[in-house]
Amino acid sequence: MEGNDIFKDELARYIQEKGFIWGPEPELYGGSAGFYTYGPLGKLLKNRVEEKIREVFTRNDYWEIEAPTIMPAKVWEASGHLRGFTDPLIVCRKCKSVYRADHLVEELMPGKADTSKNVMQLIKQYELKCPKCGHDFEETVKDHTLMMKTTVGVDTEAYNRPETATTTYLPFIRYADFFRKKVPFGVFQIGKAYRNEISPRQHVLRMREFTQAEGQLFIVKKDDWEKFDAVESGKISLVPSSGKPLTSTFGEMLERKLVKSKAYAWSLWIACRLFASMGIPESRMRLREHGPEEKAFYAAEAWDLEVEFNSFGWVECCGIHDRTDYDLKQHAKFSGQTLAINTENGKQVPHILEIAFGVDRVVYGLLDIYYEKKEKGHGLTKLKIPEHIAPVQAAVLPLVKKPELTRIARAVQAGLKHIISVYDETGSIGKRYLRQDEIGTPFCITVDFDSIKDNSVTVRERDTAAQNRVKVDEVAGVLEARMKS
Amino acid sequence: MEGNDIFKDELARYIQEKGFIWGPEPELYGGSAGFYTYGPLGKLLKNRVEEKIREVFTRNDYWEIEAPTIMPAKVWEASGHLRGFTDPLIVCRKCKSVYRADHLVEELMPGKADTSKNVMQLIKQYELKCPKCGHDFEETVKDHTLMMKTTVGVDTEAYNRPETATTTYLPFIRYADFFRKKVPFGVFQIGKAYRNEISPRQHVLRMREFTQAEGQLFIVKKDDWEKFDAVESGKISLVPSSGKPLTSTFGEMLERKLVKSKAYAWSLWIACRLFASMGIPESRMRLREHGPEEKAFYAAEAWDLEVEFNSFGWVECCGIHDRTDYDLKQHAKFSGQTLAINTENGKQVPHILEIAFGVDRVVYGLLDIYYEKKEKGHGLTKLKIPEHIAPVQAAVLPLVKKPELTRIARAVQAGLKHIISVYDETGSIGKRYLRQDEIGTPFCITVDFDSIKDNSVTVRERDTAAQNRVKVDEVAGVLEARMKS
Repeated sequence: MEGNDIFKDELARYIQEKGFIWGPEPELYGGSAGFYTYGPLGKLLKNRVEEKIREVFTRNDYWEIEAPTIMPAKVWEASGHLRGFTDPLIVCRKCKSVYRADHLVEELMPGKADTSKNVMQLIKQYELKCPKCGHDFEETVKDHTLMMKTTVGVDTEAYNRPETATTTYLPFIRYADFFRKKVPFGVFQIGKAYRNEISPRQHVLRMREFTQAEGQLFIVKKDDWEKFDAVESGKISLVPSSGKPLTSTFGEMLERKLVKSKAYAWSLWIACRLFASMGIPESRMRLREHGPEEKAFYAAEAWDLEVEFNSFGWVECCGIHDRTDYDLKQHAKFSGQTLAINTENGKQVPHILEIAFGVDRVVYGLLDIYYEKKEKGHGLTKLKIPEHIAPVQAAVLPLVKKPELTRIARAVQAGLKHIISVYDETGSIGKRYLRQDEIGTPFCITVDFDSIKDNSVTVRERDTAAQNRVKVDEVAGVLEARMKS
Repeated sequence: MEGNDIFKDELARYIQEKGFIWGPEPELYGGSAGFYTYGPLGKLLKNRVEEKIREVFTRNDYWEIEAPTIMPAKVWEASGHLRGFTDPLIVCRKCKSVYRADHLVEELMPGKADTSKNVMQLIKQYELKCPKCGHDFEETVKDHTLMMKTTVGVDTEAYNRPETATTTYLPFIRYADFFRKKVPFGVFQIGKAYRNEISPRQHVLRMREFTQAEGQLFIVKKDDWEKFDAVESGKISLVPSSGKPLTSTFGEMLERKLVKSKAYAWSLWIACRLFASMGIPESRMRLREHGPEEKAFYAAEAWDLEVEFNSFGWVECCGIHDRTDYDLKQHAKFSGQTLAINTENGKQVPHILEIAFGVDRVVYGLLDIYYEKKEKGHGLTKLKIPEHIAPVQAAVLPLVKKPELTRIARAVQAGLKHIISVYDETGSIGKRYLRQDEIGTPFCITVDFDSIKDNSVTVRERDTAAQNRVKVDEVAGVLEARMKS
């Protein structure tokens, strides 16, 4: 195995064993690829990530909504998913194993997946065989839909949504009322989406059921955007579709005509702000422009935010698109309703600037980036995750399991109202510190025999192992202040 | 229309128009019964409710998890949903309209739905006809499954989960590791569940896609439960399955043998605590015991928490069940794995005490209970929702739209970091107050010309219209203190 394959396996084991993410689920029944359960620590971490998404979007005047995850076929006809949302599938003639054809070519012939040829031609040219049994494939590549079909009522064809965004666009007429018939306005959604991938891999980076977050700005005049002035001096690493990578401010992006509008440049800033708030270091982030061949036909502008993972290198984590008036016009056409707003220039169809990303990928990224294992010694695993995003923020530890200490310890824990804490009285104090280091708890609060006399406790910091004596009354305040980021 | 039908319609209109809940969705395409979108205000309210659920469960040592919403058929074979989770469906011979047969009998012949006869007999006996076209029904009542089927991979039969609980039980072996092989432990989940109801009605009280919350306590010794001591003196209204309604403490419930174990009595207390924290007044809550005929065959104890709605009267909102070792034994049998834990009495299968409820029903309940409309006068609608659960907590209002005031107002809003606030500068100040009363905002903060001189603002309270002058620096602190419940 190569270096980062060893790391990937070690990380996957850590994620399972410590109770972050379990699966594929249902493990009890052998598992189904692409489905996972967030265990207690993973769910705390995912909740923190989602809180940060809410905080950043809300402070920037986006309003959250929650739409159904199942919608009838006509919605997906309008969005284009029913026709076009497929992957090429190939089946082994003998053992009937199925593969995603383009991935198979890439894997068996790295660098040879010439996109000008169709994938069946490549399979024939390189005489590719089934990796499981060595036999030939069937003659044709099939279109495998990623849409998960179901039925509503007695016989209405419906689908689990393949993305949240379409369901966010649909209540446009309601939004227009809610925002008192004025653009711009922003809405966001965090929720489940479903894609029936042929053979999902890469842990939670490619799931069949996943959590998406997206913010949508409905706007008419994309250059009339005062909010941009406050953020234009922010800096970010860029990989334009032509020319060299560079570091630039958002203002310079506009001046160099790397982006076309102030509101779009501001959306790029929001995306970076989101990822920084969720705990991704700025040194691990960059914006990459879509080349002409990968840009969706309706997109006027398209950049990805990429994050550098230890296990997978640079990974696409967020797409920022100027979707123009495409979506509203499609739904107007298919529904027969008018989706427009009165402006000083008459009725206009707003454009939509979208920021969309997978929440699971961020959670995995945090574990990937902050997991550390010292090669020497035993039990020296640490999760050096930023304090404000740590799943458990404090552990309360009575030095020994005696009533005079446990009583104080329980009272200390009860006082930590705005902090997620655990209480642990089992094992030596050293072992308990290591246990907390392993899951990334930034603070251990130890109650010892001096506590009875001086009404103070020892606060130990995860990253430095520094210990400070703090009055019992002040612990909550001291920790809360540290959690604000 | 009867009184509460008029109220129901008025409330439904209010909920739609103010941006709480929209639907049935997709409204743009005519709608599909039983699917709704939470608009901006509804989503804020639902988030608050979910935060309270998290808070109460977490403080009582339950740990949150998040499991997939789609699981393969074998899971639902084991849980019994695949065989037994059906409603009786009847079809009109002529117009092909479909009805839920038992509901049809209840509706057309109130009080005549004799459960000793099968529903087809009743339809024949009363010569019931299709309410739409007046024709006869088909000869047989069909079993309509409530399960929404889909496909995973190429051909694996799978279902959208009809409840969250089953998916919470499945990782039992993982829990045993996480909780270091010891019971009791508690886990909870908040997430989507799906039931393909034949004809969903009653707004969000009966949805095809809904949000469930449930806490599960895995336990061996149900009477060894110290936590009960702290709550036994709490009082609650009871409707036992035999005997008269009464008010009792949880301790007395145990003494009178209305419940069998301390841990179960404590679970009833947790359910009441949850509903009180979510903002339901105690005067509107009662516990009702299941009669022998409604109790599930595996349940050792079963009570419902009911809430009194203005629109629907007493409504079942939460089920608290001692599910014994039924679920773990079923999954052990179907998976062939051992689902037990080492105890001082050898390997034992823990029992499960469940608290389960629908989140949407609580959100609707809050709107139903706190909505008030003065018959006289215009625009005198108020949502007198408790401050700590209000969707928007403060509105910042510059008296007039002049830079010297809006500048201060924007700064005041920026200072409200832990409070959800809106900024509104449109319309007369009186109109803006009414607008906030309508959506339940407890505090309006007005910036006027004196603010420039005295660096203070006026804080107006929703329920009393009382106005107090508060220093700009102190506003956030004053409001935050009020939000703590």
